[in-house]
Amino acid sequence: MGKQAIGVVGLAVMGRNLALNIESRGHAVSVYNRSREKTDELIAEYPDKKLVPAFTLEEFVESLEKPRRILLMVKAGEGTDATINQLKPLLDKGDILIDGGNTHFTDTIRRNQDLAKSGLHFIGTGVSGGEEGALKGPSIMPGGQRDAYDLVAPILTEIAAKAPDGEPCVAYMGPDGAGHFVKMVHNGIEYGDMQLIAESYAVLKQVVGLSNEELGKVYTEWNQGELDSYLIEITSKIFSKKDDETGKDLVDVILDRAAQKGTGKWTSQNALDLGAPLPLITEAVFARVLSSLKTQRVAASKLLEGPQVRPLGVERDAYIESVRRALYFSKVISYAQGFAQLRAASEEYKWDLDYGTIAKIFRAGCIIRARFLQKITDAYTKDKAIANLLLDPYFRDIARNYQAALREVVVAAVNAGVPVPAFASAIAYFDAYRSERLPANLVQAQRDFFGAHTFERIDKPGSFHANWS
Amino acid sequence: MGKQAIGVVGLAVMGRNLALNIESRGHAVSVYNRSREKTDELIAEYPDKKLVPAFTLEEFVESLEKPRRILLMVKAGEGTDATINQLKPLLDKGDILIDGGNTHFTDTIRRNQDLAKSGLHFIGTGVSGGEEGALKGPSIMPGGQRDAYDLVAPILTEIAAKAPDGEPCVAYMGPDGAGHFVKMVHNGIEYGDMQLIAESYAVLKQVVGLSNEELGKVYTEWNQGELDSYLIEITSKIFSKKDDETGKDLVDVILDRAAQKGTGKWTSQNALDLGAPLPLITEAVFARVLSSLKTQRVAASKLLEGPQVRPLGVERDAYIESVRRALYFSKVISYAQGFAQLRAASEEYKWDLDYGTIAKIFRAGCIIRARFLQKITDAYTKDKAIANLLLDPYFRDIARNYQAALREVVVAAVNAGVPVPAFASAIAYFDAYRSERLPANLVQAQRDFFGAHTFERIDKPGSFHANWS
Repeated sequence: MGKQAIGVVGLAVMGRNLALNIESRGHAVSVYNRSREKTDELIAEYPDKKLVPAFTLEEFVESLEKPRRILLMVKAGEGTDATINQLKPLLDKGDILIDGGNTHFTDTIRRNQDLAKSGLHFIGTGVSGGEEGALKGPSIMPGGQRDAYDLVAPILTEIAAKAPDGEPCVAYMGPDGAGHFVKMVHNGIEYGDMQLIAESYAVLKQVVGLSNEELGKVYTEWNQGELDSYLIEITSKIFSKKDDETGKDLVDVILDRAAQKGTGKWTSQNALDLGAPLPLITEAVFARVLSSLKTQRVAASKLLEGPQVRPLGVERDAYIESVRRALYFSKVISYAQGFAQLRAASEEYKWDLDYGTIAKIFRAGCIIRARFLQKITDAYTKDKAIANLLLDPYFRDIARNYQAALREVVVAAVNAGVPVPAFASAIAYFDAYRSERLPANLVQAQRDFFGAHTFERIDKPGSFHANWS
Repeated sequence: MGKQAIGVVGLAVMGRNLALNIESRGHAVSVYNRSREKTDELIAEYPDKKLVPAFTLEEFVESLEKPRRILLMVKAGEGTDATINQLKPLLDKGDILIDGGNTHFTDTIRRNQDLAKSGLHFIGTGVSGGEEGALKGPSIMPGGQRDAYDLVAPILTEIAAKAPDGEPCVAYMGPDGAGHFVKMVHNGIEYGDMQLIAESYAVLKQVVGLSNEELGKVYTEWNQGELDSYLIEITSKIFSKKDDETGKDLVDVILDRAAQKGTGKWTSQNALDLGAPLPLITEAVFARVLSSLKTQRVAASKLLEGPQVRPLGVERDAYIESVRRALYFSKVISYAQGFAQLRAASEEYKWDLDYGTIAKIFRAGCIIRARFLQKITDAYTKDKAIANLLLDPYFRDIARNYQAALREVVVAAVNAGVPVPAFASAIAYFDAYRSERLPANLVQAQRDFFGAHTFERIDKPGSFHANWS
């Protein structure tokens, strides 16, 4: 029997679907799972596919062509370390481990460096697109040794999603943790997008007074224009979904308590470490946390009064257009922050990230896929060194033309008592970023006053301390 | 020669001033520094004080009464570990190390547990008040073994600041890292306070059009009322300070680039870990970061237009009162978030923190000292289990009476293009916290749609998944 060009360890839904995806491109795939039930199930379900089961890691490793390509789809964290430790003595120099799990990029840096000492290659790769993406074509963000990537690139390219222009959504991101880092920021951006859409929903429902049916139509229409994206598309569909049990609109039956798996939190924590301002995504993460305090909120709603919320009633269509513009401009601001974080990371960790390519491979397969990403690629094609996307001519035009709408929506929501933390954070960031002068001179004066922390001057370089008292 | 009741290791400004503070209460103090110059300088400067120099750690340890009380004032991080490792073999069971540095609480937990294995006590204590506080009376937040605290309590009580009612600003916070944790949150709150004051300054200057002289008067007046606090007091003084070199108002000569030492960042990162919403302080941290991107901001100011900013000109006094109310209510919201984080930490780390006592020891000595802290102590005295300070009757009254002003100021700033990230975040948090229903149901619908992450229902418990497509 011949040997396989690639094997998958871990046959939970993501691992299994990636194995099936690879197989569907004409490759035989070795498959292994710690408990053999999942392997047996997979083989029983697809007896005719070129899936080659192994029931020990020895057998699995033995079944692979050299250099071996092993895709790890196990539980991130200790599960990954345990699997690596078991595999390590069975491998030969030049073999390639590919971690496709939701791994923190600092773990990937550590593992990449550790394994390199034994001559083993380690690729940490983001895989976005959920179960269906894994099966039919995800967006893939690999990082690690460049020459190892080249040896797995043909298969990754085959299984990746294809953008509207046919380009595969996979590209080499950079050394060690670069791939998992890009995936982390992708997820942070996803948190921001979802919170912004939720705020547009709150404003359209509570300030404009739209019904679910009308909301469905609005998002369907928005999906035809600049906002064309997977998340807007599913949002439009959500509003027409009925609950099987009660016949009500399902969206109204769903509890308003948002959960999270932690990657948004990682993105914010890393932005704080890097000193890269990421307020919008961070507001989105905190908004989820606050939503989860449902019991407290219900109690507080009876004790803390707000203003009377009245639907506007007037010039409805014009106002809906303002909400659309507010959403699009806020999204631009959120991506500007996320891509500035990528830039800060690239400098800090010496990755030489290619921001235009990153936007390109987000165009299909992943959750944040959107027509708008092409504009980001275009911006970096025009000027690879641009410090912030807001400075690109296209995005400057959006800022010029849409900021009034964003201000209008924030003002209406604040007056109506509808919380819009991400919209409000967006306009604050925009106004701060375009401020030649911020009130931080007062902060520095205070710090020097109480702690002798010194300050800089506007008229000459150096550190200065004043005798304040 | 007799032995001393306490010794200080590390004679940089904080260590040296704490040693002088202890000495001033009638105690002889052993002092040691890694390089002997600092020790020699101190002794030369104060030949008549009861400072007993030691030039080796052996000599230093030998000079102390048992159980030994050793205050470590060395560089946080590796410096602390190195000093502990050198001291450890010289110590006896029951000796007490007190780390008064700016240590991350997780390091304190680790050290406390490590040293406990050798029978040594380890107290991590926050010390707030800067150089002058250290010398004359800081606010002190010790955590660690309770019985060890009792052995150092008499000295800490003597050197601590005294609140207006005479109570010393020191109290046992809780086990292991509790003291350093409380100090960290103190610093995060300080970031929030400073950013809120900076935003009030920006609005008063740019929207109302006040001069520095007028600003000084406004803050002086505010310091007579509810906002009475150290930070408002020094702010009022800052506006009348002239630059020695140019004769201009110094505040206008200071560069608007705020620095930071990282404790605000720690507070935000921990809040993200705990799942405790802390958006206001986090906006404050990001505002400092954004201020530091001065070069980018100057470039952006030429490319990104905003609305025309016009001073209001009308009803100035009424508007200034609105800014005062906006500032006070936002401050209340910030502390509500910070104290909710303390509660989340107390539950997570099993510390049994006493929130009323914490507010009490902040009343003097530290940077955030303010009349308003008494209101927090009062709230917890009335109801120790209150989930959020906004639910307390006094703070509910503030919310009822001042929210219109906060909305007015945010609206004016957003319309004028003046960034007020912390004010805007404050009202968004308030409106979200008092929302029985948030748009997070849509977020859960999206998560279930694209990732089968399931959702909860409003009408029955359990996890559900819908067939969306």
